[in-house]
Amino acid sequence: MSLALAIDLGGTKVEAALVDEEGRILAGTRTREATGAAAASDRSVLERALSAVIARCRALPEWSQVTAAGIGSAGPIDIGAGTIAPINLPAAHGMPIVAFVAEQSGLENVALRLDGTCIALAELWLGAAHGTSDAIVFVVSTGVGGGIVSGGRLVAGASGNAGHIGQVVVSEIVDGDAAASTVEQLASGPHIVAWARAQGWAGSTGEELADAYRRGDELARAAVARSARAIGVGLAGAATLLDLELAVVGGGFSFVADDFTEQIEASVRAAAVNAYAANLRVVRAGLGGDAPLIGAAALVHRSDLL
Amino acid sequence: MSLALAIDLGGTKVEAALVDEEGRILAGTRTREATGAAAASDRSVLERALSAVIARCRALPEWSQVTAAGIGSAGPIDIGAGTIAPINLPAAHGMPIVAFVAEQSGLENVALRLDGTCIALAELWLGAAHGTSDAIVFVVSTGVGGGIVSGGRLVAGASGNAGHIGQVVVSEIVDGDAAASTVEQLASGPHIVAWARAQGWAGSTGEELADAYRRGDELARAAVARSARAIGVGLAGAATLLDLELAVVGGGFSFVADDFTEQIEASVRAAAVNAYAANLRVVRAGLGGDAPLIGAAALVHRSDLL
Repeated sequence: MSLALAIDLGGTKVEAALVDEEGRILAGTRTREATGAAAASDRSVLERALSAVIARCRALPEWSQVTAAGIGSAGPIDIGAGTIAPINLPAAHGMPIVAFVAEQSGLENVALRLDGTCIALAELWLGAAHGTSDAIVFVVSTGVGGGIVSGGRLVAGASGNAGHIGQVVVSEIVDGDAAASTVEQLASGPHIVAWARAQGWAGSTGEELADAYRRGDELARAAVARSARAIGVGLAGAATLLDLELAVVGGGFSFVADDFTEQIEASVRAAAVNAYAANLRVVRAGLGGDAPLIGAAALVHRSDLL
Repeated sequence: MSLALAIDLGGTKVEAALVDEEGRILAGTRTREATGAAAASDRSVLERALSAVIARCRALPEWSQVTAAGIGSAGPIDIGAGTIAPINLPAAHGMPIVAFVAEQSGLENVALRLDGTCIALAELWLGAAHGTSDAIVFVVSTGVGGGIVSGGRLVAGASGNAGHIGQVVVSEIVDGDAAASTVEQLASGPHIVAWARAQGWAGSTGEELADAYRRGDELARAAVARSARAIGVGLAGAATLLDLELAVVGGGFSFVADDFTEQIEASVRAAAVNAYAANLRVVRAGLGGDAPLIGAAALVHRSDLL
């Protein structure tokens, strides 16, 4: 039995675990280091956190079975160079993470992919996208991002950044500000909460918005519809370009409404011209919070899907 | 030397030729049948045209070297079923073209792909996308459509319809009419000419518009900019989703302005949030009118790119 060292590098934390060939996170191996705001301006914070989680994994009795490492990282990344440049971690821009993890772990084979791509790979391997050949998997949370499966394989893109659906423009660009017109700016949890507040809604969190939605609050319903609409336009574009059969949605904000997937499906239908795109099925993710690590492990165990 | 029977099925004509392993259309083998408006309402028109071009190819002395057939068809298509459903040919919807060509040609192996996909494959094999791994190739003409290369291979999509960039929505959907907000409706030759006329321009063809553009006519410049802007927003979305390095543009209307690719590049930069997408290079196609047949032949000769 070969094991993978799986690493998930996010904007505020680093997590690692040992994962077996069936995609199981080995009990007692999962370990996490918060990096917090300091990592944005100081690369050594991130390096220390990475070193710490890797050292703890190396101290495990199962370490002798580890054959390779997989890293899912916040993006953008450059898989050719083996470096990362996460938007929220300026100090880490250009950091040679593949070489760093290889050195710290003593492992020769270290694979790097976008975090959203890893989630897509996990859902393809063991989750809601299992058995499909053409799908997009994405998370709606603080940000909106994901990964794409085409012809049964993960799409990496030229530098590893395919899947950034949150950064697709879906409404008129005003005053040259493309970033204000993206799926993420129109649909993410914080942006939708801010929009609802600007309309007069009194709450301040996604959870409160979910409660208000369940109670039938009109502003909450409008806010959720606004999110679903922007996501639907982005998905319709992706489905049209890639002829996708399935969209898988996860992330905290996806639980804002029980019928969120149905609303997104309706929005895709409204924004798709071709029947093959309009018929996109939208379902909930199957794996939840384990997906990033399972996907990072899949870079090792399921290279046939890359 | 193995030869391919290459077939290009469009809205108003069927074309065929024998193509060798180097992508050369054999002299004297290219043959064409106009189907005209009648094919839209009468499937037998299309069947007779197909039979005719295939029969002429079978009568060629080189026919004995033909090993398989490749078909590029107007879309949508269904590669799983081997059928077509071109928007402009209602009578052909559901036509089992793979079986029909197999029967008429006596060839067992018949591959089907979207026409835009075939053009992309041709440019990847022998044209402007040669040597790239992540690219979109598209045509701006009466319609706007193309194909996608990801990881060095052609993207087919679940039913074969990937690459329909003309049907991606790039502006606000008004009154539920998504089709009015697509790249094609905002950027294609006829639509741009119609737009310019609505603004008071006196011409009536894309060629006249090109002349007016060269003379510095203000309305012509605005019309070209409008086309480039819509294309740029669509490409920025594709580049963001797929992390593309290159966009290749062909088709008659792409010659409307000498700096059309530069204008599109600028529009991509304006509509892309991530640097990897903003840096998309936009270049002109390398193959011109031979691309559909060369691409159909590549379905036979370059199955390693599928």
